[in-house]
Amino acid sequence: MIKKVKITYIGGGSRLWARSLMSDLALESEISGEVVLYDIDVEAAKNNAIIGNMMMALKDAKGKWHFTVESNLEFALKGADFVFLSILPATFEEMDAYVHLSESYGIYQPVGDTTGPAGIFRSLIMMPIYEKFALAIKAHAKDAWVINFTNPMTMCVQMLYHVFPQIKAFGNCHEVFHVQDLLARALFEEKKIQASRKEISINPLGINHFTWINYASYQDLDLMPIYQKFAEKYHKTGSEGDAWVDYYPFGSANRVKFDLYLKYGCIAAAGDRHLVEFLPQHFYTKNPDIIKSWRYFLTPVAHRKNIKAEGNRLALQMIHHEADVTIKPSGEEGVLQLKALLGLHDLVTNVNVPNQGQIANLPIGHVVETNAMFRRDEIRPVFAGSMPDFAHQITLRHIKNHQLLLKAFDEKDLSYARLAFSLDPSIEHLEESQKMALFDEIYTKVKPYLEYYTT
Amino acid sequence: MIKKVKITYIGGGSRLWARSLMSDLALESEISGEVVLYDIDVEAAKNNAIIGNMMMALKDAKGKWHFTVESNLEFALKGADFVFLSILPATFEEMDAYVHLSESYGIYQPVGDTTGPAGIFRSLIMMPIYEKFALAIKAHAKDAWVINFTNPMTMCVQMLYHVFPQIKAFGNCHEVFHVQDLLARALFEEKKIQASRKEISINPLGINHFTWINYASYQDLDLMPIYQKFAEKYHKTGSEGDAWVDYYPFGSANRVKFDLYLKYGCIAAAGDRHLVEFLPQHFYTKNPDIIKSWRYFLTPVAHRKNIKAEGNRLALQMIHHEADVTIKPSGEEGVLQLKALLGLHDLVTNVNVPNQGQIANLPIGHVVETNAMFRRDEIRPVFAGSMPDFAHQITLRHIKNHQLLLKAFDEKDLSYARLAFSLDPSIEHLEESQKMALFDEIYTKVKPYLEYYTT
Amino acid sequence: MIKKVKITYIGGGSRLWARSLMSDLALESEISGEVVLYDIDVEAAKNNAIIGNMMMALKDAKGKWHFTVESNLEFALKGADFVFLSILPATFEEMDAYVHLSESYGIYQPVGDTTGPAGIFRSLIMMPIYEKFALAIKAHAKDAWVINFTNPMTMCVQMLYHVFPQIKAFGNCHEVFHVQDLLARALFEEKKIQASRKEISINPLGINHFTWINYASYQDLDLMPIYQKFAEKYHKTGSEGDAWVDYYPFGSANRVKFDLYLKYGCIAAAGDRHLVEFLPQHFYTKNPDIIKSWRYFLTPVAHRKNIKAEGNRLALQMIHHEADVTIKPSGEEGVLQLKALLGLHDLVTNVNVPNQGQIANLPIGHVVETNAMFRRDEIRPVFAGSMPDFAHQITLRHIKNHQLLLKAFDEKDLSYARLAFSLDPSIEHLEESQKMALFDEIYTKVKPYLEYYTT
Amino acid sequence: MIKKVKITYIGGGSRLWARSLMSDLALESEISGEVVLYDIDVEAAKNNAIIGNMMMALKDAKGKWHFTVESNLEFALKGADFVFLSILPATFEEMDAYVHLSESYGIYQPVGDTTGPAGIFRSLIMMPIYEKFALAIKAHAKDAWVINFTNPMTMCVQMLYHVFPQIKAFGNCHEVFHVQDLLARALFEEKKIQASRKEISINPLGINHFTWINYASYQDLDLMPIYQKFAEKYHKTGSEGDAWVDYYPFGSANRVKFDLYLKYGCIAAAGDRHLVEFLPQHFYTKNPDIIKSWRYFLTPVAHRKNIKAEGNRLALQMIHHEADVTIKPSGEEGVLQLKALLGLHDLVTNVNVPNQGQIANLPIGHVVETNAMFRRDEIRPVFAGSMPDFAHQITLRHIKNHQLLLKAFDEKDLSYARLAFSLDPSIEHLEESQKMALFDEIYTKVKPYLEYYTT
Repeated sequence: MIKKVKITYIGGGSRLWARSLMSDLALESEISGEVVLYDIDVEAAKNNAIIGNMMMALKDAKGKWHFTVESNLEFALKGADFVFLSILPATFEEMDAYVHLSESYGIYQPVGDTTGPAGIFRSLIMMPIYEKFALAIKAHAKDAWVINFTNPMTMCVQMLYHVFPQIKAFGNCHEVFHVQDLLARALFEEKKIQASRKEISINPLGINHFTWINYASYQDLDLMPIYQKFAEKYHKTGSEGDAWVDYYPFGSANRVKFDLYLKYGCIAAAGDRHLVEFLPQHFYTKNPDIIKSWRYFLTPVAHRKNIKAEGNRLALQMIHHEADVTIKPSGEEGVLQLKALLGLHDLVTNVNVPNQGQIANLPIGHVVETNAMFRRDEIRPVFAGSMPDFAHQITLRHIKNHQLLLKAFDEKDLSYARLAFSLDPSIEHLEESQKMALFDEIYTKVKPYLEYYTT
Repeated sequence: MIKKVKITYIGGGSRLWARSLMSDLALESEISGEVVLYDIDVEAAKNNAIIGNMMMALKDAKGKWHFTVESNLEFALKGADFVFLSILPATFEEMDAYVHLSESYGIYQPVGDTTGPAGIFRSLIMMPIYEKFALAIKAHAKDAWVINFTNPMTMCVQMLYHVFPQIKAFGNCHEVFHVQDLLARALFEEKKIQASRKEISINPLGINHFTWINYASYQDLDLMPIYQKFAEKYHKTGSEGDAWVDYYPFGSANRVKFDLYLKYGCIAAAGDRHLVEFLPQHFYTKNPDIIKSWRYFLTPVAHRKNIKAEGNRLALQMIHHEADVTIKPSGEEGVLQLKALLGLHDLVTNVNVPNQGQIANLPIGHVVETNAMFRRDEIRPVFAGSMPDFAHQITLRHIKNHQLLLKAFDEKDLSYARLAFSLDPSIEHLEESQKMALFDEIYTKVKPYLEYYTT
Repeated sequence: MIKKVKITYIGGGSRLWARSLMSDLALESEISGEVVLYDIDVEAAKNNAIIGNMMMALKDAKGKWHFTVESNLEFALKGADFVFLSILPATFEEMDAYVHLSESYGIYQPVGDTTGPAGIFRSLIMMPIYEKFALAIKAHAKDAWVINFTNPMTMCVQMLYHVFPQIKAFGNCHEVFHVQDLLARALFEEKKIQASRKEISINPLGINHFTWINYASYQDLDLMPIYQKFAEKYHKTGSEGDAWVDYYPFGSANRVKFDLYLKYGCIAAAGDRHLVEFLPQHFYTKNPDIIKSWRYFLTPVAHRKNIKAEGNRLALQMIHHEADVTIKPSGEEGVLQLKALLGLHDLVTNVNVPNQGQIANLPIGHVVETNAMFRRDEIRPVFAGSMPDFAHQITLRHIKNHQLLLKAFDEKDLSYARLAFSLDPSIEHLEESQKMALFDEIYTKVKPYLEYYTT
Repeated sequence: MIKKVKITYIGGGSRLWARSLMSDLALESEISGEVVLYDIDVEAAKNNAIIGNMMMALKDAKGKWHFTVESNLEFALKGADFVFLSILPATFEEMDAYVHLSESYGIYQPVGDTTGPAGIFRSLIMMPIYEKFALAIKAHAKDAWVINFTNPMTMCVQMLYHVFPQIKAFGNCHEVFHVQDLLARALFEEKKIQASRKEISINPLGINHFTWINYASYQDLDLMPIYQKFAEKYHKTGSEGDAWVDYYPFGSANRVKFDLYLKYGCIAAAGDRHLVEFLPQHFYTKNPDIIKSWRYFLTPVAHRKNIKAEGNRLALQMIHHEADVTIKPSGEEGVLQLKALLGLHDLVTNVNVPNQGQIANLPIGHVVETNAMFRRDEIRPVFAGSMPDFAHQITLRHIKNHQLLLKAFDEKDLSYARLAFSLDPSIEHLEESQKMALFDEIYTKVKPYLEYYTT
C-alpha cells in the first residue's frame, strides 16, 4: 500500500468529475493520502471537501483520504504527485453564446466544447488560463503527473506542452469506452459470446472526440466483420431503439457511426454527438429535422445550467444531512491510471499526448489519441499506424486549425483565429462575410475573457 | 556549340506545344541535333516533322535540327538526351464527359484538366499510360532528362517517379510567369519603374496550378506592399478592364486572385481559371452568373475541338504551301531549361519535382512546385519554406486525394478514386449519393480507357 | 483451444532452437497443429521430426503436434500460419574464417555472428539467401507471421523487409532477459525482495545485441539507483565470482557491463561478449590478457563444431532409444509470442522490427529493438524514446554500416562492403591497407558463398 | 546606389577580417553608409576606425563609408542592417592551452579552432559569449542580417539559432573556394582550358571545414573524371611541389585531399589542415614525421601571437603615417553577400545555416554548409542531396558531439562536454582515463572562461 499520495485537483469545485474521483478513491484500498481542492469558486470546493470527508467516514469506504481546500495555486501545487485539471473555461453564459449564436446561421453543435465555432472560442478562452496553469506547474510541481479532463481536450493538452515542454501531462477521456461496449454487444448478438469492455482489444487513433478504430478483436476473433453486420443491421434505425431518448439531452442511437462506417469503411470510436461537429455541415447537421432523423440530441446550454444548479442543491443537502452521501464506482479509469503510474500494476489504455510517431500520418508534436502503456512514472504510446483515409483528411484540417489557434496565442493576434474559424469544416460552406459576422457576434459576447489578445 | 542532341517528343503530333518547341529550336544557335516525334496519331506527327524541317530551311532559322517520326516507342527513346511528354490522355470526347457532365450537378470547371471531377478522371486515364512511358524510359533511356508538359501536371510527374524512382523528370509550367508580369505591371503603376518579367524575383510554392508566392522583389524594393495597393485598386473590376474578353474562352481579369489576397493575405500565382477549381464550390463557381461576375471564362471542350481542327487545317495548308511557315519565340522556357541542363548557362526557375523538403509543410516525396537551380545534368530545388496558411489547408486536401489516386492505381481499385472524388473540395458539398451518381455517369462514358482497373 | 496451426520451420534440422521449440510445444495445451521442418540438411530435419513426434508420445506431453519434413520450400510454406527462420548462413568452415582470421590482426571477436569482420561477412552471405526466403514467403505465405532467430538478427530482419516490405516479420532474441535477471538479483541483494524476471519492468532500446535500458522498475521502486550500487560493488570482480567459468566458452562475469555503466551512465542489456564486438578495439578486446582481465570468453568455432557433432550423436541415440527423449521448458518466449499473435493473451516483450519512431533518434525504417505489444495478428511497438548518448553514437556508426551492406546487396557491389568494413568501430584503428588485406583474406575463404556479388 | 547602410562589426578591433572588409568597402561603389566597430579591445577598434577612415580618404577609394567606435553593445547594435561577428573567444593564452596540451598525448591539431580537444574547449568558451550576442541582437537588432566569421563556425551559428531561433544569421567561410581553384587548375592541366573559380560549378555539402563535393562541372564538362586523373598524378607528391612551404605555417600540398579521394571516392572541399582534425588520429596525424610526410603544417599558437603583435605594430605605423594605408580586394565574398541581401544582384554561394533538408541524410536543424541563393532580404538553401558515405559516417559523429556540447550549455553541465571529448574521433583511441586527464589539464588552464558552467 502506497501512502501519502498528494493529489491537487484544479477545478475541485466541480460537481461531476470531482465527485466521481472522490467515490473511486473511497473504494480504493491500495493507495491513500491527501486531495487538495483548488477552484475559483472556493465555496464549491469547500462543499466538495466536506462531502469527500463524509464519504471517507462511511462504512463501505476502504480508502483513507483527506480532502482540503486551498485557494492559493502555488500552495495547492507544492508537493503534488498528481494534478487533475477539470475546469469550465469562462462560464455557461459564454458557453451559451459560443454554442447557440451559430444557430441563426444554420450551424448546430450538439455538444459545443471541442471544435466548430464553439470549440474555437472555448480554445481562445482556455489558452491564457492554461498558460497560467502550465507555468505554475513548472514552478511548483514540475515532476507531478498532470491529468487533464477539460475540453477542448486536444487543445488543452497541447497548451500544457506548448508552455512547458517537459511537463508530464496527458488527457483522459472515456469516449472510446463506448465503442468497446458496442463491439461487445455486436459480439453477443452475432456469436452469443459474452465479453466485458476490457476484453475487447482495439486500436484507437485520431484526435480526441474524432477517434477511430481500425482493429478490434476478442481472443482469436476478428471483430471487424462482426461490426460490419451489426452496422448494416442497425443502419436505418440506430442500435438503441427508443432507449437513446432516455438520455435526453445527451443521447444518440449510433446512426451516424454506422453511416460513416458503411460509407467510408472505418469505425468511429467517439459518440455521434461529437463526430458530427467535426464534419461539414451538410453531412449530418443541416437542420433540426435532419438532426432528428439521425437520432441524436443537441444539448441546450440551459440544460447544463440546470444540472449545475441541481448539483449545488444536492451538495448542500448532503452537507446538511438532508440527502445521503453514497459511494459508487464511476467506471472512469482515472484512479487506475494513477495506480499504474505509481507502479502498482501495468495498464494499456487510450490517452491524449503529443504525437511521437504513434500515428504515422499526423504531424509529430501534435496531441493525438492512441493506446499507451502506463507503468511506474511513465506513459509510453503504443504505435497505432496510419489513420484511415476519410478520417485522415478531415483530421488534417482540424490539426491545421489547432496550429492556427496556437499561432493566435503566440502572436496574441485573433486574425489567425479568424482564419481557423473560416476554415472549420462545419462552417466552411458559409460566405466569408457571414463567417466574419458570426465570429464578431460571438466575440462581442465573450470579449471580457479574450483580453489576452491585443489585436 | 553542342551538337547531336537527341530529343524524343512523345505527343509529337501536338499542334501547340510541339510547334512552339520547333520555333524555339529554330531560333537557337548554341545547340543542334535531332528531334524524334512519336505519337499514336502518326499522321499528325508526320505533318509536324515536315513543318519542322520547313522551319529549319527558313532564312531566319539559326538552328540546325532534323525532325523525324518514329512509331515504335523503344526506337524513339533509344539514345535520347531529352524526352518531352506532351499528350492528351484519351480524346476530347472523354474530356467532354469529365468536364461537362458535372454541370448538371452545379459543378463548373473552367479548365477541367487538373483537379475536381475532371482532374480525377483524367488522372485515372493517365496513370496506366504513364506507367508504360516510365517503364519504357527506364528500359531505353534511363539517363535522359524527361520534361513533362501534360496535365494533370502534379499527378503525371508523380506517376513517373512512382514507377521509376530514379527517373530524371520534372514538370514544366508557364503559369507562374503571369504573376511576374502582373507584379511588373503593379510596379510600373505604383512607381513608374519598367521591369521585365525576369527581373521580378519571386518565391513560388505549392502544387501546380495552385501555386502561391509569399515573396516578391525588384532590386531593393519589396513588391508585397505594392501588390497590396494594386489588388485593392482592381478588386472590384479586375485588372484587365474588358481586355480579358479578347482571350475568349481562356481569359480572366484576376478578380479571384485579388479577392483571395485581400481575404487570406497571400498571392496566388496561377490563373483564376485554375485557382477556382481547387476551392469549394461556393467560393467562386456557384453558378454561371456568379462566374460571370468574377470575370473568367469556362472553356467549352467543343472549343478545344475546333482549335484542334483548325490546327490540323493549318498544318496541311503549311505543308502544301498555302500558308506561311513562320518562326517566332514562344515565350516558353523549355529550350532554356534544356540548355541549362547541358551546362551552357545556369538558370533558376519554377519546376515540379518531388518534395525533398523544399516546401517544409508538405509531405516528402509528393510532387510540388518551387524554384530550382538548373545546371549541367542536374536540377536542385531551392528551399521555399512553408506554404501560407489558407493555401496550405486546401493543398493538404488535394495531396491526400493524389495519394488516394495512386492507391487506386496500385491496387487497381476504383474505390479509392471514389473516396478521392467524394473528398474533392469542389464537390464536397454534394450528398454522397449525388457524388456517386456523378462518378458513375462519367465512368460510363470513359470506361474503355479505364480497363486497367479491375474492381 | 486453437487447432490446426501450421508452423513452417526453416532450418528445421537445427539442434538447439528447433528442439527448444519442440519441447515448448509439447508442454503447450492451448494450441495444436503441424510443424513442417525444412532444411538443406534433410537428414537432420528428418531426425528432428522423429524426435519431435517421440516427444509428443511422452506421458508428460500436453500438446498435440505432428512433425513432418518437406524439402520443397514452396510446399513447406503453403498454408503456413507461422514461419520460423533459424539457419546458419554457410557452414562452420566459413564461420571459422570470418571469426578467426582477424586474430592475426589483433582483432578478437567473442561471438562472431553480429558485427565486426565476422558480422559483415556473415551478412554478405546471408543476404542472397534471405532474399530467396523473402520472395518465397511473399509468393506462398504472405499473411504468415515470420519469426527470425538467425544472426545477424538486425540485418536478417532488415533484409526480409527490404525484399518484401509488407512482410509480417520480427526478430526474437532472449539476450535482454539476462539484464532483467541481473536486476532481480540486485534488487534482492539491496532490498531482500524476491522478484521474477517478468516482474522487472524495463525499457530496452537499441539494435540487437547492442541493446540498452534507461528505465527499470519493480512495482513502485526505481531500480536504477539499485543497479548503480550493484555495479559499483562488482565493478572490479564481476558479479559471477568464478561461476562464469562454468559456462566455458560462453560465459562472462558482467565486468564490461558494469564498466560501461560507470563510465557512460547507461545500462547495457546485452551480454558482455556481444557488447565488446560493437566497440572500438582498445575498449575491451585489445589482446588475450586484457580480455581475460575483463572476464569473458572468446568462443572458438571449433567448439561450435563439437557441439554440433555432439548434438547429431545425441539425436541418433534418441532415435535408436539409446538416450532418453525428454521435455523441459526452454525459457524462450517463442511459443508465448505465437499464442499472443493467435489472440490467446496479450504480451509486451522486446522485439526487432523496423523503426517507426519507437526510437526517436534512430532513422525511420531501420530495424531496432524495443518493447512491443503482441495481440491477435499484430505487433505494435511501444515508444521507447531516445537512446542514451554514448550508445547512440556507436549505434549510428553501425546503422550506417548496415545501410552500406544493403547497398552492396542492391548494387551487387562489394566496394560498399569494403567501406563498411573499413568503418567498423572494432577495426577502425587499422591502416586502410591492413583492413583491405584482412577483407581479402576472408573473402578468399568464403568466396563460393558470395557469387551473388558480381563486382 | 543604396545609402545609409549600417554595419555593426563585433570584433571590430580584429586585424585580419576587419581590415579585409574595410578594403572591400572602400572599393565598393554601389552601397555606402556607416560601420560601427565594437570590441572589448577598444583601442584596437579605435585604431581600425582611424585606418578605415584613412582608406576612404584615398584617391582610389570609391566607397563612402564612415567608421566609428562604440563600446556599448546595445548602442552599437541599434539600427544595424548587418552585424558581423568576428572574435577570438578568450585569448591566445587559452588557445595555446587547448591546442598544444594535447601534444604530450600524441594528439596534433594543425589549426585548433574547430574540432578535437581544441574545438571542444573553444566551443565551451564561445557559447556563453554568443548567448550574450544573440540576446542583444534579439533585443536591439532583430531584423539585421548576422554574418558570422568566428570559429568554430558550425557551433557559433548553431548557438545563435539556439538562443534566438528567428535570427537571420549565417556563417561565411572561404574554405570551399580553394577546391574550385584546384578544379580550375586540374581543368587547365588536363584540357588546357582556362577558367576562373566562379565558373567552376560545384555542389558543396557537409559541415564547415569538413565540407565535400560530389559534383563539379565547367560548362558541359563533367570535372569529376578530370579530378580523378589529377588526384592520381599528385597523390604521392602533393599538387604544390615545394611551394606550399612558402605559406609556413599555414600551407599544405593537398596530399590528404587526394588520398581521401582515392580511398573513399569523394572530394574533400576543405583544406588538409582542417580535414585531418576531423578524422581518427591514425589517419594522418599520428606523429610529427607522419605529418611531415603528408605535407601540411601544424600552426603554433606562438606564431599567431606574433602575427597579432605585428598587426598591432603596423596599425600604429599606419596611423602615424609611418606605413602606407592601401586598399586591395580581399577575395572574400562578404561584401558580395551583403549587396545580394540588399537586392542589388543574385548570388549563389556556399553558406552555413540550419539544415532544413538541404542535406538529406543529416538531422534537421543542425547547421550545415551547402550552396544557397542570396536575394533581397533572404537566403534560400539549395538542395544538395545526401553526403557521400565515408564523409557521412564521420560527420554524424561530430554532429552528435555538437549536440552534446549544446546540452552542456543548456544544463550548464560539463559532463556532457566530457562525453563529447571522449567520443571525438581524433582522440577516441586513448584510454578513458587519459582522455579525462587531458580534459582536466586543459580545463585547469581555461577555467576562468568557463565559469558559466556550474557543475
